[in-house]
Amino acid sequence: MSALYPNFKFDIVKPCTESRARLGRLVTPHGAIDTPNFIFCGTHAGLRSMTGEEAKAAGADIVLANTYHMLVRPGPDIVRKLGGLHKMMVWDGPIMTDSGGFQIFVMGYEGTSDEIKHRGKTQTKKSLIKINEEGAWFYSYMGGEKIHLTPEKSMDVQRALGADLIYQLDECTSSAHGKNYHADSMRMSLRWGDRCIKRFAETSDGTQALYGIVQGGNYMDLRTESAQRINEQDFFGMAIGGYFGKSKSELHDIVAPTMEIVRRDRPVHMLGIGHVEDIFAGVRAGIDTFDCVEPTRLAGHGTMLLKGQPRMRINLRNSKYRGDDTPLDPDSAFHISRQYTRGTLHHLIQAQEPLAEHVLSMHNVHVTMQLFREIREGIRTDTLDDVQKQWIVEAKI
Amino acid sequence: MSALYPNFKFDIVKPCTESRARLGRLVTPHGAIDTPNFIFCGTHAGLRSMTGEEAKAAGADIVLANTYHMLVRPGPDIVRKLGGLHKMMVWDGPIMTDSGGFQIFVMGYEGTSDEIKHRGKTQTKKSLIKINEEGAWFYSYMGGEKIHLTPEKSMDVQRALGADLIYQLDECTSSAHGKNYHADSMRMSLRWGDRCIKRFAETSDGTQALYGIVQGGNYMDLRTESAQRINEQDFFGMAIGGYFGKSKSELHDIVAPTMEIVRRDRPVHMLGIGHVEDIFAGVRAGIDTFDCVEPTRLAGHGTMLLKGQPRMRINLRNSKYRGDDTPLDPDSAFHISRQYTRGTLHHLIQAQEPLAEHVLSMHNVHVTMQLFREIREGIRTDTLDDVQKQWIVEAKI
Repeated sequence: MSALYPNFKFDIVKPCTESRARLGRLVTPHGAIDTPNFIFCGTHAGLRSMTGEEAKAAGADIVLANTYHMLVRPGPDIVRKLGGLHKMMVWDGPIMTDSGGFQIFVMGYEGTSDEIKHRGKTQTKKSLIKINEEGAWFYSYMGGEKIHLTPEKSMDVQRALGADLIYQLDECTSSAHGKNYHADSMRMSLRWGDRCIKRFAETSDGTQALYGIVQGGNYMDLRTESAQRINEQDFFGMAIGGYFGKSKSELHDIVAPTMEIVRRDRPVHMLGIGHVEDIFAGVRAGIDTFDCVEPTRLAGHGTMLLKGQPRMRINLRNSKYRGDDTPLDPDSAFHISRQYTRGTLHHLIQAQEPLAEHVLSMHNVHVTMQLFREIREGIRTDTLDDVQKQWIVEAKI
Repeated sequence: MSALYPNFKFDIVKPCTESRARLGRLVTPHGAIDTPNFIFCGTHAGLRSMTGEEAKAAGADIVLANTYHMLVRPGPDIVRKLGGLHKMMVWDGPIMTDSGGFQIFVMGYEGTSDEIKHRGKTQTKKSLIKINEEGAWFYSYMGGEKIHLTPEKSMDVQRALGADLIYQLDECTSSAHGKNYHADSMRMSLRWGDRCIKRFAETSDGTQALYGIVQGGNYMDLRTESAQRINEQDFFGMAIGGYFGKSKSELHDIVAPTMEIVRRDRPVHMLGIGHVEDIFAGVRAGIDTFDCVEPTRLAGHGTMLLKGQPRMRINLRNSKYRGDDTPLDPDSAFHISRQYTRGTLHHLIQAQEPLAEHVLSMHNVHVTMQLFREIREGIRTDTLDDVQKQWIVEAKI
């Protein structure tokens, strides 16, 4: 590992025999995590309704906060005054922050987030003012103040937030951009990566490690160029991000060959992707960590995750769960999932009791971590196919 | 104690020397609680965002659910199918249910709840259809269905819910009613009490104990008549409820002399009252238990309770808490209250993170239970005056 990251380590414990999947161990100053693993989203330094301790009890190993949101409110100076993210989140394990880029462009170009996540279009207001070599100017969603984010400022902000794993500033593109724009943007993100590393090296106290982000849209030649350059840059880890095309299959078509280019000795993160089929595809391509708001967002919508269900989901709003005294998961190792019944949750959701989201969040964290535990066990024992068959099932018609 | 209540007991451990305050112990099939004590509101069988386990960890000894809400949704049959309130709430301690009367009349006569709680008027839709000797007809807030609640049905519903401490059906009056109405209504509630006891005796399996409710509005002669009759009825406990007049001082003017009439060997509950000054006045009058939505409702509004603050409250929405790294309560015995800072909560409230309500709910439960622990200690050591001075303080001007 680079001298820039004295307190970080990534070891490949066991490579898979049939795919690029690998069992790894990522060491940070706030403890080590086994990989593949999942990073839970605490957007504004809050894991929805869970305390850090509760998320840990449910099984979580690592969490994230969003640099963009924390920059806009409460601002890096206030976070520093409050002792940094670990103190604010009452979380003594590893924390990741993204660079802020994703949200700027998601909010900047209408519909980008929906596209990347393959959702229907929603109405979002354009907030990006200008983007050029220097950085990006955008309106804060708090009172419309203009904010300027440069690669250097992204480093300084993430330094103040104090996460263990931090990210270079990059531009997130969309289908609105053609190949020329994607090429120029990807190369600008590479130059932003150089500037991030420079600022990082000047200011590092050894407590943080920097990830580069492979861009290039759904153009394999651009992804290849991006990955090759980032392989050479002095990052601790690498991430795959941005626009992959309009369908799920394009996502898989881009990620796997891109991962053939990405060097194998660094931890690799997949940004913002967390559906079960994408997780298995990503793991097989060699991805080590994932993040997604799904486990907690679904909890807020009354959906519980469960092994053996289509898309891992049960919608407890459905009236068929009225009076159902089946525990959320009768076989769970997690007491909450055994104590609360589907019928009680159906009732609490109907009554709009915040307890429903709280219980389902903890349950969904636990099931997500069960998925990753079984994925790791599948890699260890060369039975990943069997694990996948248990977790990805078709709906019965 | 009456043969109707073989598994319940109320012992006065120590009477106060200077007032009617007493240290007691209330034994139920789900454990014993020390009194004076506070009963936390889990309206729809959910303590807002706390699991039963979390409320217990924060210090709660006993909780309640509202018969009216549980009758309307999900209905007593569904509650029974789901194993009763203890199973639904994942709470193995004592539970109380009210009779359903309060909500019928609160929602029936516009503004009644605000009056009883001495709040400003809010707009509520009249839902009461008819009330007579037989019982009350009202519209469900779920789809406008007509529901009929009689004393017998209130017993049957509360039997299905399965709480330890249950309540007779009574009518809740308001300032809209004159003395004649109050007199007739109070006497009807007494007759409803007789019918409740009859139904209770026919159906009891020994797992529940019944409370009578002293009514009579702000007329001392009516309160006296009500208390004297209920003293003779075969209730396990007694409650003070209903309309006390338009000001706080009228509340105190009614409760203390009424408690002079109420027999001393039964536990006495004060319905729906929980402000700190009312609690001390009630304790001195001999009240053993209180309930109020305040601790959790205030949490939802960004207000934390704290000893030594005016009205026990700190409004964390106030911008002066921005960046304040003071723990919620630096001296707390409860880790959550020491771990989270006022500045972090200010931020989480601003960001509308549900974690804010969750953390403040647990904190507020803990402070409320600290208040009651200190009240009990004050009675034990004859220092209730000192305790009161520490908890009821004036705002500095």
